[in-house]
Amino acid sequence: ESMLPAFATHQVGVAGAVLDEASGKVLVVQDKNKTKNAWKFPGGLSNLGENIGDAAVREVCEETGVRAEFRSLLSVRQQHDHPGAFGMSDLYATCRLRPLSFRITLCPRECLRAEWMGLEELARTDATTPITRRGALLLLHGLRHGFQHVDLPLEELPAVQPGRRYQLYHRALPAGGPQND
Amino acid sequence: ESMLPAFATHQVGVAGAVLDEASGKVLVVQDKNKTKNAWKFPGGLSNLGENIGDAAVREVCEETGVRAEFRSLLSVRQQHDHPGAFGMSDLYATCRLRPLSFRITLCPRECLRAEWMGLEELARTDATTPITRRGALLLLHGLRHGFQHVDLPLEELPAVQPGRRYQLYHRALPAGGPQND
Repeated sequence: ESMLPAFATHQVGVAGAVLDEASGKVLVVQDKNKTKNAWKFPGGLSNLGENIGDAAVREVCEETGVRAEFRSLLSVRQQHDHPGAFGMSDLYATCRLRPLSFRITLCPRECLRAEWMGLEELARTDATTPITRRGALLLLHGLRHGFQHVDLPLEELPAVQPGRRYQLYHRALPAGGPQND
Repeated sequence: ESMLPAFATHQVGVAGAVLDEASGKVLVVQDKNKTKNAWKFPGGLSNLGENIGDAAVREVCEETGVRAEFRSLLSVRQQHDHPGAFGMSDLYATCRLRPLSFRITLCPRECLRAEWMGLEELARTDATTPITRRGALLLLHGLRHGFQHVDLPLEELPAVQPGRRYQLYHRALPAGGPQND
């Protein structure tokens, strides 16, 4: 067994679930060049050095023209021997975003269509993916009972290496605990 | 902008937080060859094609001899330009594990020492890392109020590609929802 560090084994994809809390509608797209035209949250691959949340905001804007800001991580998927990853593995992070604009300007190269869809409709339709449906159910639960029940908020912390920082996602801890470091 | 898939950009590290719920103690180690001997959960890099939970169980056993089973994901960290990753990025997943054995057999090549430590002591000590401290606080909260408040349980689902499956982690949804697909 080698003690040397392994090489990079995963690409990291992101999806941005942009929820308009006032209307209960979320931004969904249908990709071009897919056999089954399922409604999904806009997204794509993150670039080297790009944070998950930044990648989700960028991909949403590129595909739909909608500007949004990161709120939290909702789910993470791991899939091995991914068809789009040359035999490598894929991590796919779905993020909750808040819209800063609402007008859709479709990127015709990547998307067939895009719309603001009611969360209940998205949770019910057959024309979606299991991950998107779970995202819709998480957002519905958050809208009704508070997003603290579904969110994995971001905390940015200093790394051991001077001047570097990292991003940590987990369930929020109760306030007042010995969390200062 | 290229439409080709990107290359793999991340290595995936794992840590296994093995909690003995009866005693409130968790398995911690001090790595060899580190400048600061901080208590951490045992862990290391996942292999190509290895699930996060399986990698955590394997690393715990290799470093301490303790056998354990996967319960849930607790946290995910993203760090770019990671010193051990040749300029690539690092994702680091902390998992909650349940012990199946308790006797520690230290791997002297990787670990300086290992012990079962009380969660409150681990949450308080200066001789640990921010991620480990948050892990201890999440486990303490789970032990007191129920692990459903801190867990990201695993759901395994069929991929679009026939015969393949993927692993999805998110906050548990209330039972009875339209989640069947």
